[in-house]
Amino acid sequence: MKKTDVLVIGGSAAGLVAALTGKSYYPEKDFTMIRKEKIVLVPCGIPYIFGSLESSDQNVIPDTGLEKAGVNLIIGEVTKIDPAGKTCLLADGEQVAYEKLVLAIGSHPVKPKWLKGSDLENVFTVPKDKEYLDLGIEKLQDKNKIVVIGGGFIGIELSDELNKRGKEVTVVEILPHVLGAVFDEELALKAQEVLIDRGVKVEVGAGVKELCGNGKVTSVVLQNGTEVEADAVILSMGYKPNVKLAEEAGIDTNELGFIMVDQYMRTRTPDVFAIGDCAEKRDFITNKVIGAMLASTACAEARVTGMNLYKLEAVRPFVGTISIFATALGEHSFGVAGVTEDAAREEGFDIITASFEGIDQHPGNLAGTHKQIVKLVVAKESGLILGGSVYGSRSAGEIVNVIGLAIQNRMTVSSVLTTQIGTHPLLTGPPTAYSIIKAAEMALRKIRDN
Amino acid sequence: MKKTDVLVIGGSAAGLVAALTGKSYYPEKDFTMIRKEKIVLVPCGIPYIFGSLESSDQNVIPDTGLEKAGVNLIIGEVTKIDPAGKTCLLADGEQVAYEKLVLAIGSHPVKPKWLKGSDLENVFTVPKDKEYLDLGIEKLQDKNKIVVIGGGFIGIELSDELNKRGKEVTVVEILPHVLGAVFDEELALKAQEVLIDRGVKVEVGAGVKELCGNGKVTSVVLQNGTEVEADAVILSMGYKPNVKLAEEAGIDTNELGFIMVDQYMRTRTPDVFAIGDCAEKRDFITNKVIGAMLASTACAEARVTGMNLYKLEAVRPFVGTISIFATALGEHSFGVAGVTEDAAREEGFDIITASFEGIDQHPGNLAGTHKQIVKLVVAKESGLILGGSVYGSRSAGEIVNVIGLAIQNRMTVSSVLTTQIGTHPLLTGPPTAYSIIKAAEMALRKIRDN
Repeated sequence: MKKTDVLVIGGSAAGLVAALTGKSYYPEKDFTMIRKEKIVLVPCGIPYIFGSLESSDQNVIPDTGLEKAGVNLIIGEVTKIDPAGKTCLLADGEQVAYEKLVLAIGSHPVKPKWLKGSDLENVFTVPKDKEYLDLGIEKLQDKNKIVVIGGGFIGIELSDELNKRGKEVTVVEILPHVLGAVFDEELALKAQEVLIDRGVKVEVGAGVKELCGNGKVTSVVLQNGTEVEADAVILSMGYKPNVKLAEEAGIDTNELGFIMVDQYMRTRTPDVFAIGDCAEKRDFITNKVIGAMLASTACAEARVTGMNLYKLEAVRPFVGTISIFATALGEHSFGVAGVTEDAAREEGFDIITASFEGIDQHPGNLAGTHKQIVKLVVAKESGLILGGSVYGSRSAGEIVNVIGLAIQNRMTVSSVLTTQIGTHPLLTGPPTAYSIIKAAEMALRKIRDN
Repeated sequence: MKKTDVLVIGGSAAGLVAALTGKSYYPEKDFTMIRKEKIVLVPCGIPYIFGSLESSDQNVIPDTGLEKAGVNLIIGEVTKIDPAGKTCLLADGEQVAYEKLVLAIGSHPVKPKWLKGSDLENVFTVPKDKEYLDLGIEKLQDKNKIVVIGGGFIGIELSDELNKRGKEVTVVEILPHVLGAVFDEELALKAQEVLIDRGVKVEVGAGVKELCGNGKVTSVVLQNGTEVEADAVILSMGYKPNVKLAEEAGIDTNELGFIMVDQYMRTRTPDVFAIGDCAEKRDFITNKVIGAMLASTACAEARVTGMNLYKLEAVRPFVGTISIFATALGEHSFGVAGVTEDAAREEGFDIITASFEGIDQHPGNLAGTHKQIVKLVVAKESGLILGGSVYGSRSAGEIVNVIGLAIQNRMTVSSVLTTQIGTHPLLTGPPTAYSIIKAAEMALRKIRDN
């Protein structure tokens, strides 16, 4: 039997960051990572191997970080965890004993059982599995009409990438707009408009009924009766946490099927942590369990875990998960941090919102100036910023991080108004009309006038 | 005699934002702005009228905001303030009575008396004066060899822009590198390298001795004896606050010549505020008076003033000025927030610094991926982030705003480590190696190992 101090199961973003952070904090401890994949893909980069990147080889997380840090690596599959005996059993019969166990076992794409035809040839999902994806991409090469089922961010990024490669792509989405689950209507519609402009067909408000074909898929039939021809279908209908291993070991999971954890990512089983897609998340405002899966969130959890493996070194008052998320279609970018207006209203919050439409450079006559819209969702009584979204150019990805940091620091619109920011003609909106501050100003005016 | 409730003198960024914010908070009050300029230029856009923009007409702050808000506008020059009688006298003899007075009277370019030849023909400065600048740009048209004296941010932006127009440009800087006053050596050197790469000549560590010529300038002689040929010279040697009007009215100024103010931008004279380039700034850490002049800082001050004209509505514990600043040369951007390492050491702070070299997209194989370096300056004992700088692509302008917000929220490197951020392949660095967080991690390790 092998022995290690800290055993990390899973080698994607969360596992990697937990192992590296942990080894850095506890260099005297022996760290071992067990993962199934010989080669690990950058998770968020996966849609781009279908277009912008030449192949998945260009989207690999190298093992050099692990090697340099001295983390042992085992390529293999853990088939059983024994939390009482503090050992793991591998498929090849090997056993590994641990002091601390970190489950970073990820998620797998949903392939609904009710969906007739989902086992037809040329129907694919998007797992974080290089071999599967490489084979899929090869098979897609001579396919022209591709239907992507699910208009979430992976679905639309994938569609846009396949469209770049000259495919005829149709996105099917059951909600009234693509990205409708993450963005408020105005932003979702904007993204949809851009997607259509770029040549992707969109069937929204349209649940899928079945996939048809004789052996190979030939069409997708929607609930409304529409039939869309398809040489291939990609199911992008969400992900489910990988928890079988944990459940079989008696580690508690919550009502959404995620492994239950506290704010230090400790499960209810002693010395077992869970992080990333497989681990429970609670909304930072409502404290309700949510199903968010983001690599950036996973990495924040992984750092917390790495630091706190043997002692609660980095004290972390409960903060909950603030999903901060961005996507891009050509020169158009879309981002959101915290709650959307729809989510806040649904939750019963007494909110006001304010949207400011500005520019991403100044003066606006500079070549390449792009519209920039910032919307803030604000608690009416306290003025606390609960969420924000951005439409703009590439800088939108960092603007949501500014908003995210404001939320995490419990800033009010009033404090944002006196905040100092930096501006530059070629890099940001103008100092007189920086979008976040203007939106805060509008929000405060609405609160006052109410 | 005209009467108004709030009189704002000065129509650039600070005056505009103070008037608009004030009118929004106190709509029942009558607001009047008096300014000299018929047409106001976007201050930070001025270097770009020498290259990227076709003319200064493309770099104008329109008066529509003032008109829409119902702020009265007088084009004219205030020649005397009577704080006791609460009136201002204009050059045309008109008098205006006020309840509250906001001085947003700006700054003027330094033209040192000791500099022989500075009155020769074709020697220019860079004031915020459209007519002067338009004339200067016209005169520069048939000039080829241009010497810019002063390698601060206006000097280098201007040089890069003139270089774009095909001019042969030399920047003369007395410090060892361009931008040496705002950036630490490594970033300053990087900017200098880029500038040289783009075709601008640089004479550093070289004070100017005199400008030579017979009527028209023909060369610049440096202290080291070097003579640089010049068809035109642009003096970009800094700015001084416009305070004559205030001093003559008995309004106190500080040892650096700025109008003294408290954290609500109130001068020591009742009912008189001062904001922007003419107003005193104190460093947010040292509380020492500093000479910073940034439009973004001016706008933050203007918002504070506008809100607090009649009552201290927006309470603002003393925060001081955190200069947040960015500039760009082609695809390379440079930013800084808070104190630099050099400044912190000079001040006697016990600091550690950490630099992380990452990328602005991920995976790095995506076309157009740009190097991104974040450096943090951290107080050793408390872990407080005192400053940070960024080298990268266009997103650097918002990354310094993330750092700036962390500083203003008094975040420590430890709290940054557990902060949630958002990432996207095309828009940001990777979730596993987001530059600010990696730099914080390195800083914390240094603190621990110390």
